[in-house]
Amino acid sequence: MPIGFELLAECPVTRARRGRIHTSHGPVETPCFMPVGTRGTVKTLGSEDVEALGYELVLSNTYHLALRPGVEVIEKLGGLHEFMSWPRALLTDSGGYQVMSLADQRRITDWGVTFKSHLDGSELELTPERSIELQAAYNVDISMMLDECPPYPCTREEAETAMRRTHRWAPRNLEAKRGDQAVFGIVQGGVHEDLRRQSASYLSTLPFEGFAVGGVSVGEPTEMQYPVVELTAPLLPKEKPRYLMGVGHPQDILHAVSCGIDMFDCVLPTRMARHHTLYTLQGRVNAAAAEWATFEGPHDPSSVFPATERYSAAYLRHLFKTGEFLALRLATLHNLSFYARLMAEIREAIVDGSWTQLTERYARA
Amino acid sequence: MPIGFELLAECPVTRARRGRIHTSHGPVETPCFMPVGTRGTVKTLGSEDVEALGYELVLSNTYHLALRPGVEVIEKLGGLHEFMSWPRALLTDSGGYQVMSLADQRRITDWGVTFKSHLDGSELELTPERSIELQAAYNVDISMMLDECPPYPCTREEAETAMRRTHRWAPRNLEAKRGDQAVFGIVQGGVHEDLRRQSASYLSTLPFEGFAVGGVSVGEPTEMQYPVVELTAPLLPKEKPRYLMGVGHPQDILHAVSCGIDMFDCVLPTRMARHHTLYTLQGRVNAAAAEWATFEGPHDPSSVFPATERYSAAYLRHLFKTGEFLALRLATLHNLSFYARLMAEIREAIVDGSWTQLTERYARA
Repeated sequence: MPIGFELLAECPVTRARRGRIHTSHGPVETPCFMPVGTRGTVKTLGSEDVEALGYELVLSNTYHLALRPGVEVIEKLGGLHEFMSWPRALLTDSGGYQVMSLADQRRITDWGVTFKSHLDGSELELTPERSIELQAAYNVDISMMLDECPPYPCTREEAETAMRRTHRWAPRNLEAKRGDQAVFGIVQGGVHEDLRRQSASYLSTLPFEGFAVGGVSVGEPTEMQYPVVELTAPLLPKEKPRYLMGVGHPQDILHAVSCGIDMFDCVLPTRMARHHTLYTLQGRVNAAAAEWATFEGPHDPSSVFPATERYSAAYLRHLFKTGEFLALRLATLHNLSFYARLMAEIREAIVDGSWTQLTERYARA
Repeated sequence: MPIGFELLAECPVTRARRGRIHTSHGPVETPCFMPVGTRGTVKTLGSEDVEALGYELVLSNTYHLALRPGVEVIEKLGGLHEFMSWPRALLTDSGGYQVMSLADQRRITDWGVTFKSHLDGSELELTPERSIELQAAYNVDISMMLDECPPYPCTREEAETAMRRTHRWAPRNLEAKRGDQAVFGIVQGGVHEDLRRQSASYLSTLPFEGFAVGGVSVGEPTEMQYPVVELTAPLLPKEKPRYLMGVGHPQDILHAVSCGIDMFDCVLPTRMARHHTLYTLQGRVNAAAAEWATFEGPHDPSSVFPATERYSAAYLRHLFKTGEFLALRLATLHNLSFYARLMAEIREAIVDGSWTQLTERYARA
């Protein structure tokens, strides 16, 4: 499916951009955060909840969906939107991240990657062609190219090898496109300035519909992550969306937006929620801690998901202490509400020039 | 808190009654089913969900709440309604059921029951006075008397001992009442006709606000359960609500309503849901079974909780197979929707004389 990108405004103070991605499943206001729905569900939530939170774009995962339920099931049901009953836009990661995260379950060659399923030992081959074909079959709005994402730490040689393979795969990804399928390129190069420059420069020459900074947030410390984003974001084509994969905490997002990044995804708000950690303007809090035992107010009195405002911090603590599933749902709603509001305020601050006030407001978040 | 009961209509075909319980937290149309919220939450659901399903009365548990979060926390938060953010009516079981279900963790005397907590080994004493006091502190709409619920199988002597103790405790429960607190009596007597008659006859002389049939659905086969209900229900005062504790499957509810029972609670719809079993008019189905792998329609195309209609049986199966929490929530919503509709149709059929058609409609459920 084709997409379009409109640049609506630029921040007078930073490199931040306010934009809009047009998709067949509605507009996506940027900068945006994508909740992660690895296996076709944002963990603990229904699509109606993610809609009510105001998200316009959800990320899912080519590799995990290919294992279960399998591409045939999703095709039979009419595509991933219909399968998960999500009417708004979808982006799938290509499986490139699993090249790193499942390193002990895969073999990689110039041809592609072969994964051995942790479920039943069966083999799944992902080549650039196959990854793009799967994403076309899922019928998502934005497909990601298959790349090789190196881990951190790795040698310079390993980072360079992964980058070169990613570059060799880039045209194969594009040639595999079905019709108007929108495919994003992924810049690699690890923490090495010259490699990042080389990667951004080469990929920018190819007709991708957007560009991602990959290989960030793979274990490196913040002081190595930030320079990569500062360097790479401005090298990417201005007229296309820029996506920083796998990032991050609110501070990381604010920093990356100020470098000119438009799109984010991260498991942190949802995963932290399941481990009873809530994002607040006062910092992260442990929702299971004794200090909340009799606290009568909600953790977030101005949630974008009003149903959560009715529950006290004391009740949420009780749910966590007794192991009730509702705890995971309420904490997830809390954190995704926090992120939705953060992104809305970011979009506002870019337009009205209040970036400094915004970063002060989120200084402890 | 005081309650009132109105008898609105009687079934022309059976002993079924259509009624209304008036509480400070709104009316409860009867016959009614109470979802079970043992620890202050109907497992996997928020109060807004239980409201949307249309339930007017939820059951919680004196014993479990006393352990966690403790009565002080609930009092501090303003009562159980406020604690769990449930604006409609609440009933608490007295702890009498735990006398049976936690038999290896308790000592019982004529004075009361002492439980040894499975959490930390601490002791919790429940006497009739303490149970009623706790329920008053929770500020629920309907309190249950502390009774002794014998297991099945048990000897006639054991059933009789439990009944006699229940009878000795009955006046103590009533004397412990705070103001207008509404307390229900509980008939015991096991599967023995003469004991059930004796128990119903004695308890009916006491000023309870309603009467329950206890000690049913504790492991006995259907052919022993049904005669107890048929015998006991009509012995209970006509002008007070009649409550069959812990029952049951749709067939059991239809049978008991036809005997004159007004209220039910049961963990089955919620517990079965978490074990991927769905109630349907065609019988119980295994939502995780391969037969649903590519089934495009929802399990229930006319749910009283419309949000669940958007999900296909194929998607729900995928969620169960991949162990996603959302599966438990959707299946719970499905089963509680099925029960809510069953009860609504029961209430309708009593009034419009279509009881036979109703039982035919649910013949396979």
